[in-house]
Amino acid sequence: MPLTVDAVEKWAEEVRGGSVRAVSRAISAIENHEPDAEELLRRLFPATGGAYLTGVTGAPGTGKSTLVDRLAAHYRKRQEQVGVIAVDPTSPFTGGAILGDRIRMQGHAGDSGMFIRSMATRGFLGGLARTTAEVALLLDAAGKKQILIETVGVGQDEVDIVRLADCVLVVMVPGLGDDIQNMKAGLMEIGDIFVLNKADREGAERLEQQLLAMLSLVTPRDSWHPPVVRTVATENKGVEELAETIGRFRAHFDSSQERMRKRAEHWKQRLIEMLGSRLLERALRGAGGEARLTELARAVAERKIDPFAAVGEILSQSGLES
Amino acid sequence: MPLTVDAVEKWAEEVRGGSVRAVSRAISAIENHEPDAEELLRRLFPATGGAYLTGVTGAPGTGKSTLVDRLAAHYRKRQEQVGVIAVDPTSPFTGGAILGDRIRMQGHAGDSGMFIRSMATRGFLGGLARTTAEVALLLDAAGKKQILIETVGVGQDEVDIVRLADCVLVVMVPGLGDDIQNMKAGLMEIGDIFVLNKADREGAERLEQQLLAMLSLVTPRDSWHPPVVRTVATENKGVEELAETIGRFRAHFDSSQERMRKRAEHWKQRLIEMLGSRLLERALRGAGGEARLTELARAVAERKIDPFAAVGEILSQSGLES
Repeated sequence: MPLTVDAVEKWAEEVRGGSVRAVSRAISAIENHEPDAEELLRRLFPATGGAYLTGVTGAPGTGKSTLVDRLAAHYRKRQEQVGVIAVDPTSPFTGGAILGDRIRMQGHAGDSGMFIRSMATRGFLGGLARTTAEVALLLDAAGKKQILIETVGVGQDEVDIVRLADCVLVVMVPGLGDDIQNMKAGLMEIGDIFVLNKADREGAERLEQQLLAMLSLVTPRDSWHPPVVRTVATENKGVEELAETIGRFRAHFDSSQERMRKRAEHWKQRLIEMLGSRLLERALRGAGGEARLTELARAVAERKIDPFAAVGEILSQSGLES
Repeated sequence: MPLTVDAVEKWAEEVRGGSVRAVSRAISAIENHEPDAEELLRRLFPATGGAYLTGVTGAPGTGKSTLVDRLAAHYRKRQEQVGVIAVDPTSPFTGGAILGDRIRMQGHAGDSGMFIRSMATRGFLGGLARTTAEVALLLDAAGKKQILIETVGVGQDEVDIVRLADCVLVVMVPGLGDDIQNMKAGLMEIGDIFVLNKADREGAERLEQQLLAMLSLVTPRDSWHPPVVRTVATENKGVEELAETIGRFRAHFDSSQERMRKRAEHWKQRLIEMLGSRLLERALRGAGGEARLTELARAVAERKIDPFAAVGEILSQSGLES
């Protein structure tokens, strides 16, 4: 049964007040696509837009988690409220992320200005990018001024997630194999700042040279030339400089149209996704739900019907297409 | 202007006959979402289902491309027609894959029994998984009995692509860093066969032990225990054994319900995607197209309207929701 208007408003108030319990409950509602979640987010929406979203991406093994933890600690020292969303689409089948949360939270136990959440699974119809975006809105409404979104940097899902962010950090490390070049084509164009982590390792100099050479080929957006920042996150080296560089990027684009353009682009994708899942839910409900879909899928697999005819059947039964 | 029924039938005949030119033209039509592509695929659909789809996934730097090339050459030597689809979602912004195609095709120049195509970009509404699936159907109709689908193994998009396949190879190499463990949770559950490539490198023994230890924790499906096969693809070592193992897997599941179950599951996802993009196209057309969407997205970014209200507006204007 959906909550009453008053109950949702009370919940929204608690979220705006930063209640960890209210925020956690809201995340569960978002993940489970509960109707109350939409009602809650509608109410919270006017209170959003104040957070700065930093996306952190890179291959597995580049030390993203440690870097994000250090960056979060840096912001906390400056009394800024921090939200961390760690997205791991590599484990869509496991609940492993939850354990990771507990381990990561230990370092920040008792700090109510810090909220950490991992997202791994995705629902029947919804994408991980959508859930991540909604959780970011929620943390924004809860007063987190710095939101760090961490994701493994390969694949379209990650590109979609990273598009959420105001500033994108691409993390690289020396010695991940020569074929790391394979990853660069895409990452070069989404990175606003490049982090050379584990910079005390052999090959750091060479990787930095390669990076700078490749970056010199990228056309700067609004005269921002993506810099390379060296860090050793495990020893907290370079983290302050990195935070400063993020601040510089933020200042650079606060005075330009770029940030609004990026956010409008992001909302365009989001509206498409929201529309798509709304329409799908309606179509399937009208046509006999998931059970009918399963039947049709089996008929297609057995070549008894072609997939275009199956789609046509659902559409005509749902009343959405005459 | 759409083609006449006769022209599409002629095209379909050419595809069934294996014409490289007809297949290439069809792939372009699929990538550009031309209405003729749907008509063509409808006609070809009854001729499909004969191909065996092998998915090859793994992190960048594991030598997947070389392995796929060697496997393809192995099948060609046995007079089997081969199709290779190399999916690279890491370069959604570049046209780099095309160059890669040309380089890879050189080794098979003049061999009409071999078709190689890279897919990298994705359209405004369509996903890469959808395009890949449609190209696989096409190659199936064109008589390619062995279809190899190669993709970088991280992210939901890749998981969706790999779900297409009848048999999934997960490729790993020694020395990709300790944190390769991060990738395993998801990959362990989708792999039917594990390939330890570059097996002449230091650390191969240790990686194999780790792999076997982790695999011992995975519940076997229909009493198939995913084996580990060692290869050195650059020297063509282990490729024949790998092909034999794939054959063993195929025989194992041809006698079980598993293959049909997997294909029905795949078609369920496909039908959802097809439905979604069909409905989205209709909704946007009715509501003023992409231009109206762009306007609304901007209004949301400026907090003038909430995203749920924006979606409601498109729905009511499109006539899809009263």
